[in-house]
Amino acid sequence: MAPAETPFRGPIPPLPQGFQVSGLHTGLKRNPTREDISLIVSDRPATAAGVYTQNLVFAAPVAFDRDRTPGTGFRGVVINSGNANACTGTQGESDTAAMAALTAEAIGSIESSVLVMSTGIIGEFLPMDTVKTGIRAVANQLAGDEDSVMRAARGFLTTDTRPKLAGEAFGKTPSGEKYQMLGIAKGAAMIGPKLATMLGLILTDAAITPEDAQRLLYRATDLSFNCVSVDGHMSTNDTVLLLANGAAGGEPLTGKNLDALETALMKTCDALAREIADDGEGATHVIRIEITGAEDREDARRVARAIADSPLVKTAIAGADPNWGRIVSAAGYAGVSFNPGRLTLRVNGFELFKNASPVGFEAEKVSKSIRENRETLIEINLGDGPGTIRFYTSDLTAEYVRLNADYHT
Amino acid sequence: MAPAETPFRGPIPPLPQGFQVSGLHTGLKRNPTREDISLIVSDRPATAAGVYTQNLVFAAPVAFDRDRTPGTGFRGVVINSGNANACTGTQGESDTAAMAALTAEAIGSIESSVLVMSTGIIGEFLPMDTVKTGIRAVANQLAGDEDSVMRAARGFLTTDTRPKLAGEAFGKTPSGEKYQMLGIAKGAAMIGPKLATMLGLILTDAAITPEDAQRLLYRATDLSFNCVSVDGHMSTNDTVLLLANGAAGGEPLTGKNLDALETALMKTCDALAREIADDGEGATHVIRIEITGAEDREDARRVARAIADSPLVKTAIAGADPNWGRIVSAAGYAGVSFNPGRLTLRVNGFELFKNASPVGFEAEKVSKSIRENRETLIEINLGDGPGTIRFYTSDLTAEYVRLNADYHT
Repeated sequence: MAPAETPFRGPIPPLPQGFQVSGLHTGLKRNPTREDISLIVSDRPATAAGVYTQNLVFAAPVAFDRDRTPGTGFRGVVINSGNANACTGTQGESDTAAMAALTAEAIGSIESSVLVMSTGIIGEFLPMDTVKTGIRAVANQLAGDEDSVMRAARGFLTTDTRPKLAGEAFGKTPSGEKYQMLGIAKGAAMIGPKLATMLGLILTDAAITPEDAQRLLYRATDLSFNCVSVDGHMSTNDTVLLLANGAAGGEPLTGKNLDALETALMKTCDALAREIADDGEGATHVIRIEITGAEDREDARRVARAIADSPLVKTAIAGADPNWGRIVSAAGYAGVSFNPGRLTLRVNGFELFKNASPVGFEAEKVSKSIRENRETLIEINLGDGPGTIRFYTSDLTAEYVRLNADYHT
Repeated sequence: MAPAETPFRGPIPPLPQGFQVSGLHTGLKRNPTREDISLIVSDRPATAAGVYTQNLVFAAPVAFDRDRTPGTGFRGVVINSGNANACTGTQGESDTAAMAALTAEAIGSIESSVLVMSTGIIGEFLPMDTVKTGIRAVANQLAGDEDSVMRAARGFLTTDTRPKLAGEAFGKTPSGEKYQMLGIAKGAAMIGPKLATMLGLILTDAAITPEDAQRLLYRATDLSFNCVSVDGHMSTNDTVLLLANGAAGGEPLTGKNLDALETALMKTCDALAREIADDGEGATHVIRIEITGAEDREDARRVARAIADSPLVKTAIAGADPNWGRIVSAAGYAGVSFNPGRLTLRVNGFELFKNASPVGFEAEKVSKSIRENRETLIEINLGDGPGTIRFYTSDLTAEYVRLNADYHT
């Protein structure tokens, strides 16, 4: 069903102080080598902020976390994959509450200190016996080593081919060290967020007020997770949480340290967002779309999203085909007002369209450049406006179709 | 490149009185068995109405026809396939005008009596020498027999696998006969119109005022061509024209005869729209989406379109997978306000979701029903509102990807 897992690329970022993690296969996924419950625990109460799917049809854990964040006093996050607990009615709501209560019991805390994330198939009830046994088992293996971090990250995944991690060191702690930040995410499909995201969890040992946490998380996700689309299908479960436990010491950050945290958060979210597009189901290219000259950022984003969601653009890139008419025509139906005569288009640095007319270019050269690079860069300038955006998507291959034509039955 | 052509299914509808048609391979398409220029000529001045793409990036022939319709005095429509004459700047504009002038000369009329439609690759200049010779040749073969109708219909096609024709007899002529209507269309990909369409041409031997022609055409396309999506990508060239030449006699229709024309027009447009979804690139299923209980028609259409454009829904149907969570979650992000607790979903008559909770159903039975039928019916009721729509789309297969990954280079 799912593709073979490939290893995480690059060094594993360190776990921020005061956190322990673990991940286990408990039986929610069929494949016994795939972790399906992960647990993140802070040894002291942490501040938490969250951003969530805008889908009217949202999963039980989304409603649960949304009610509790932003806030303080959080000790744990429990994540399960293989089952989204979405479209499961009141049964789903009580199952989410039970997951929080079981986790609280296992880590010696109270139910209101636990947040829950779920991802996987929609519309099936969680097998709560498995979940109950699983949460107790996973809580017995909490640790801070690299192997535990990798197992926790794998517990987030569904059809992803590899774990998604990103880390940053930033600012200056009272003892003169750096604060640490670690981000974990999952992606792959049903990726088309709007002011929301897929599953992501960002941990830091800095202290921060709930208000700053929410404000900075909203801003960072808006320019990262909200600028990525695999298939334009907004999920029922999109959630990104930020947990800041202050274990590195000091008061809630202000001034330069807070600015440093924001920069680290942006970088972490951006790295995870790019990873999600790069690991889009069946993807052979990650496509970076850079729009400039729009009237404002939302106009730029709409144009980028129309291009990112066009199956014709995505298949052209899969075929290394500089079929720029598909890109320009997608911009034209984005619902944004601009003068097509002012539009210029570059692909991988080659100018393809300008002044409402084709520009002579060597198609084979551009095609070769697309074929030989994992990333394709599409740059569009719409005019003189200040609106810009950078957006990530993946190409559309026959493998995406194969994966999704038999994901369920 | 393009898939093998399959024959037209069903009887060929008669050509309305006073029209002659032809279609020829002239060299715009590489394959010498594929017609690429078609000509439709009325022996007397006809009333014409048109509806056009809403894309900001529109082709030269769209601008040309939009300036001329609705109106009277039309004698011919020239159609070329293989080249869209879009994104071709002022050169494209003069090429379109030249096509009209060449056609007028060949049929002994004036330039302002000719309309032009183009479809095919975006961003290449028309080879005007080929077009010039082609228009003269095609004008020499005008006739009214079935073979000519088929050749004219084939001249509309790009990656379509078969010609698309529909016909209706309606009303009562002064001599007690019926008026005839014939519709010709093309589809296949870049099909995601919004108050616009793909290429369509509807001929009738009834007389009608330009105002009635425009009003009825707008209404009919809004409920037919505007309710079909193959890949959600709005074309630069979408055009539907109605030509009414009055050759069956009588004054412009009024009363019951006008109502009969409207019904015939709705049926003709609906049949062509369904054909376009059914012949979507790589399609193995046509998907009919029926939304009821929305607040108004536009809300119903938005929900239908979100479902129709979701690659996850389309691949699920390709895989005969009753993965209803994908359907319900697509409705949830359509940007329409409704109560998810009130939503009910049926697929091929089987109830799958109700009261925000899964309904027990036999997955294998539903899967078998999807697998064994060319058409899949998705019915969603959103509540008590009066808004309804019927929308067509096709499934998404690996063949769509294959076709579009190497259409151009």
